[in-house]
Amino acid sequence: MKEGLTTVAKGIETCEILTCGTEILMGQIINTNAAYLAAEVALLGISSLYQTTVGDNMERLVAALKTALSRSDCVILTGGLGPTEDDISMAAAALTAGVELAFHEPSARAIRQYFAAIGREPAKNNFKQAMLPVGATVLPNHNGTAPGAIVSVPPADGREYTGYIILLPGPPLENRMMFESSVKDFLQSRTTAKLTSTFVRMIGIGESDATTILADLIEQQQNPTLAPYASEGEVAFRITQRTVGAEEPAAIELLLDELKNRLGSYIYEIGNRSLPAVLKDLLTEQQKKICFAESCTAGLVAATFADQPGASVCLQGGVVAYANSVKEAALSVPAAMLAEHGAVSEQVAMAMAKGCLALCGADVAVSITGIAGPGGGSEEKPVGTVYIGVATADSCSAKHFYFRGNRQKIRKIACLNAFNEARLELLKNQNSPFSDEV
Amino acid sequence: MKEGLTTVAKGIETCEILTCGTEILMGQIINTNAAYLAAEVALLGISSLYQTTVGDNMERLVAALKTALSRSDCVILTGGLGPTEDDISMAAAALTAGVELAFHEPSARAIRQYFAAIGREPAKNNFKQAMLPVGATVLPNHNGTAPGAIVSVPPADGREYTGYIILLPGPPLENRMMFESSVKDFLQSRTTAKLTSTFVRMIGIGESDATTILADLIEQQQNPTLAPYASEGEVAFRITQRTVGAEEPAAIELLLDELKNRLGSYIYEIGNRSLPAVLKDLLTEQQKKICFAESCTAGLVAATFADQPGASVCLQGGVVAYANSVKEAALSVPAAMLAEHGAVSEQVAMAMAKGCLALCGADVAVSITGIAGPGGGSEEKPVGTVYIGVATADSCSAKHFYFRGNRQKIRKIACLNAFNEARLELLKNQNSPFSDEV
Repeated sequence: MKEGLTTVAKGIETCEILTCGTEILMGQIINTNAAYLAAEVALLGISSLYQTTVGDNMERLVAALKTALSRSDCVILTGGLGPTEDDISMAAAALTAGVELAFHEPSARAIRQYFAAIGREPAKNNFKQAMLPVGATVLPNHNGTAPGAIVSVPPADGREYTGYIILLPGPPLENRMMFESSVKDFLQSRTTAKLTSTFVRMIGIGESDATTILADLIEQQQNPTLAPYASEGEVAFRITQRTVGAEEPAAIELLLDELKNRLGSYIYEIGNRSLPAVLKDLLTEQQKKICFAESCTAGLVAATFADQPGASVCLQGGVVAYANSVKEAALSVPAAMLAEHGAVSEQVAMAMAKGCLALCGADVAVSITGIAGPGGGSEEKPVGTVYIGVATADSCSAKHFYFRGNRQKIRKIACLNAFNEARLELLKNQNSPFSDEV
Repeated sequence: MKEGLTTVAKGIETCEILTCGTEILMGQIINTNAAYLAAEVALLGISSLYQTTVGDNMERLVAALKTALSRSDCVILTGGLGPTEDDISMAAAALTAGVELAFHEPSARAIRQYFAAIGREPAKNNFKQAMLPVGATVLPNHNGTAPGAIVSVPPADGREYTGYIILLPGPPLENRMMFESSVKDFLQSRTTAKLTSTFVRMIGIGESDATTILADLIEQQQNPTLAPYASEGEVAFRITQRTVGAEEPAAIELLLDELKNRLGSYIYEIGNRSLPAVLKDLLTEQQKKICFAESCTAGLVAATFADQPGASVCLQGGVVAYANSVKEAALSVPAAMLAEHGAVSEQVAMAMAKGCLALCGADVAVSITGIAGPGGGSEEKPVGTVYIGVATADSCSAKHFYFRGNRQKIRKIACLNAFNEARLELLKNQNSPFSDEV
């Protein structure tokens, strides 16, 4: 089998995503591969005008491949590379390209090695996965037994250029790793355009307010583009610039400066870090420890923070003080204070933070007490009322918030704001990195 | 505008899902609507052979609608019902059906009422959402401003029967609610076949072991079908029976009995309740309170439990004892025990549970201490080693577990097993509801 492709008659400007899988047609799994591949392809500056899913049926799959190649330069076909009779993607690609399947010894060897490594014997049908279209570029799979392939399809049916079918395995990890290691470079080398993008992440301002402040920039946009990026409880914008050849994406910097001018005090990150990651990095930098006293979020703040590997460097722990008796027993909130002001109050938020700081021996304690609903609200304190307290050795304060949404959403937004209050505390004596304001 | 459809020439046997949205083609959002709709359509016994996504482009959308109607009885078109110029789904459906758009006063009134309720003025373009295809059945939207519609398309292009375009809004909540309240009955009334299904949920056994024990049943399956249902950290099987007309799905019961015979001691639910929901119901029934002492899960167990509305009836709270100093200070774990056995040990798990029970004043305390990785493992206690302790007023014990996976997966599986240990404690003096074994 010849490695490498024969004809490159035209750059790849359009690519569509085709998924083969009855389990997706039945709604048993969500097609996350399509979203991942679509985003990657878009980042390469390649347009994607269609996504299609068909089942494990030769006639329909070949028809879908032909339709895709009649309107796009390239089609990425995901799934159907398994060892069973239902797995027909390689055969369908071969049929579409007008070539035979042939036994590919290096792939068979990789399959033997894969099974040896996990201490099992391959079944006979596993070697079906080494039957690949003649002339294809074989893509090794480092996370499973199914190799992928790039199959070139000669001009036909009115198409004047060579088309490409890129076959990737269905399991998301294998799909991503193979795209990353073998397909990205292939596509990049065949496109002249490139998209460069970054995210501007904010908290403390609503999407409609932010969009209004940036309205002229959003309307004028051409290259780079500026678009809001949906993200629950926070506001993010994506800036994307399309460049050709060796051109530098310099206009992104200019637009970023303008965003910092207008919204700098709300920006917590320009790039990919989440809010808990920004907080973790700040704590690590300042060599400080944190703890959380949670009522309505019931552990969600600590758990989200601990989701990050290496959280143990700065996370002491905390208390889930759901019942008032636990607020008293574990956090030393006075019963009289609870009776007078109620559990959802500025006073109790401050007492919870102080109690947690003392119990856990941290540098910063953050407390969250609120009403997540669906029941439990009153006229004075409706569902969505949340107090967030912050205590350190020499200060203590609490803020009132009102969040709209259902139980899950209120808890999630409370969680983000708890991280933000901790971040603001740590930045108290310095300028915000993205703003001239203190 | 006439409500109700004119021609029902044929039952609906096939239905495909068409999504309109550039943000999906760009990979900015995952198409969860398609999976939801596909699963619902499958449950109605309707076959779905294609899913397609196109962008906000009239020519391509109309072509996709025509293609879909040439091969399926019905197409559900999701997205593109918004107020902006990009939102073209209603116009595309009208064009495909050969009818005009007309102003629909009841929908305009609903839009005015929606804005009044949130205290805002509708913009002029919001009333574009009241322009609907003449003759369509209008589907009210109780969660947003965009009505949906069912548009019948007369026989054409070789199709001998009336076809249907069902238009639903893109935001997932609006999409689901509208399907549930208006579309399900419409489809059900036009299909003769019906799928009835249930889930059998287990914990404490791996999927490959369970599948081996049920191999003959899975192989023989025809109607009802028995299929494993992927669910991290637990094993679920879905049983589905197809019935026609008034036929009862009686064979499901027989298959359920066989599953209970073979795997009853692992089954925690036959139906839709999650493991924390089963635990919450048991606690509520027994009028007991629970608390959690968490190290490696760092609040995830309490937060997952509290995700359920009404959790406050039985959740006291807990301690996130991430650092050893917090295990000592908050849970009274002796420093000498931590030094001798290590934080990840049977002894410390038991001490954590006892300390938490005392601090939070509950009937049952569950503790979790383990190594979630990526670092921190040793030869003796590799990453994935977890101890789960359970304490009540008159008993205390701990179990050793070993879970494989990355940090997120280990924490999630530990969390499920913590719920299960609490469940087993509450069932200690009674038979399992799904097994003859004690």
